[in-house]
Amino acid sequence: MKIGVLGTGGVGQTLAGKLAELGHEVMVGTRDVAQTLGRTAPDGYGNPSFATWLEGHTAVQLGTFAEATAHGELIVNATNGSAALEILHQAGAANLAGKALLDITNPLDFSQGMPPTLFVKDSDSLAEQIQRTFPEAHVVKSLNTLTAHLMVTPRALADGAHTVFVSGNDSAAKAQVTTLLASFGWQDIIDLGDISTARGTEMWLPIWLRLWGALQTPSFNLKIVR
Amino acid sequence: MKIGVLGTGGVGQTLAGKLAELGHEVMVGTRDVAQTLGRTAPDGYGNPSFATWLEGHTAVQLGTFAEATAHGELIVNATNGSAALEILHQAGAANLAGKALLDITNPLDFSQGMPPTLFVKDSDSLAEQIQRTFPEAHVVKSLNTLTAHLMVTPRALADGAHTVFVSGNDSAAKAQVTTLLASFGWQDIIDLGDISTARGTEMWLPIWLRLWGALQTPSFNLKIVR
Repeated sequence: MKIGVLGTGGVGQTLAGKLAELGHEVMVGTRDVAQTLGRTAPDGYGNPSFATWLEGHTAVQLGTFAEATAHGELIVNATNGSAALEILHQAGAANLAGKALLDITNPLDFSQGMPPTLFVKDSDSLAEQIQRTFPEAHVVKSLNTLTAHLMVTPRALADGAHTVFVSGNDSAAKAQVTTLLASFGWQDIIDLGDISTARGTEMWLPIWLRLWGALQTPSFNLKIVR
Repeated sequence: MKIGVLGTGGVGQTLAGKLAELGHEVMVGTRDVAQTLGRTAPDGYGNPSFATWLEGHTAVQLGTFAEATAHGELIVNATNGSAALEILHQAGAANLAGKALLDITNPLDFSQGMPPTLFVKDSDSLAEQIQRTFPEAHVVKSLNTLTAHLMVTPRALADGAHTVFVSGNDSAAKAQVTTLLASFGWQDIIDLGDISTARGTEMWLPIWLRLWGALQTPSFNLKIVR
């Protein structure tokens, strides 16, 4: 299917690459196409630039946020949480209407240093803010609870014996995302309920960050044993 | 060893019962001993009263919060989160000084209805509030991430193949709690770091409550797969 991926960072690259590999027609959305293609130096973490990454992924198209969103029948929100709402405004409410919006963002606030806090939590969530702001989109929160590599390659860890969650108000959109997750190799997908259950998965981040410190690797995930 | 258990609810009963079964000298602490012994009707959930429970656990003593804390070489805080600080004041700073305080509480606020929110979170935690208020106690946060029965019987689920966390500033107190957890049957005990890492485990509650709804049972736990 045609999929728009918003965001050119590590999560966007990982999702776009996997989706293209699975045969989907992927367009990645960015703020300024020329500027994105002009940045060829690695980022601060040593990751290759998106322009370099794109050279190895010739099936993936690049467009503006609005173009990628218009292109997609399903949209992946892989932007920074702090910029998500503004970027979705650029993507355009009309381009989002009636489509599943797989929201991977986390509301991380780094302004007070490390570890980050959450700029929305507990009685609200970023997923709900997005759903309220774009009521015609079908927001499905998922994949925000683990590192990018494992999002699309769950069987790289314990042969896939771990858990991912979906939250959302629209059953058809959740089913669409669940099918996509299964195509990545996910075997244990728990439907937590409506979009307000994303409060729980977004509030997983504080312990996830401390586990990264304790385990000295981001290559872990939780399994719900029952 | 001599252990004081603060709280006569389900968590207090479960911990006190298991600790007595393991041969520890347990005194449970309550606000008013005569009143606690006088309540014989089941609670609102149909659980037997503490007085009824005590008849089946004759090795367990009952005293005031201060008496139980003076008795214990290690203290278990199984009170309601909203009352924890006030009860620990009754227990007495001098009685807590120099002892490991295993804190199982969660800062749940039911005042706005269901699901509850957290009255402290993200940039602080109930465990840190307790540590700051009683600087001579050695607070170790643990066991607050799962249902009471599984706290003391981890092998009842998946033969114990799931995870519990410890957070605390004092290595000796963490080691003491870890030994106790191992005696319950815990095999995967992750030391998250200092007491501020309890923010993460306390913020697990919102997803835990939603999972209870989705799975229709509280008999589950997370396993950190790595």
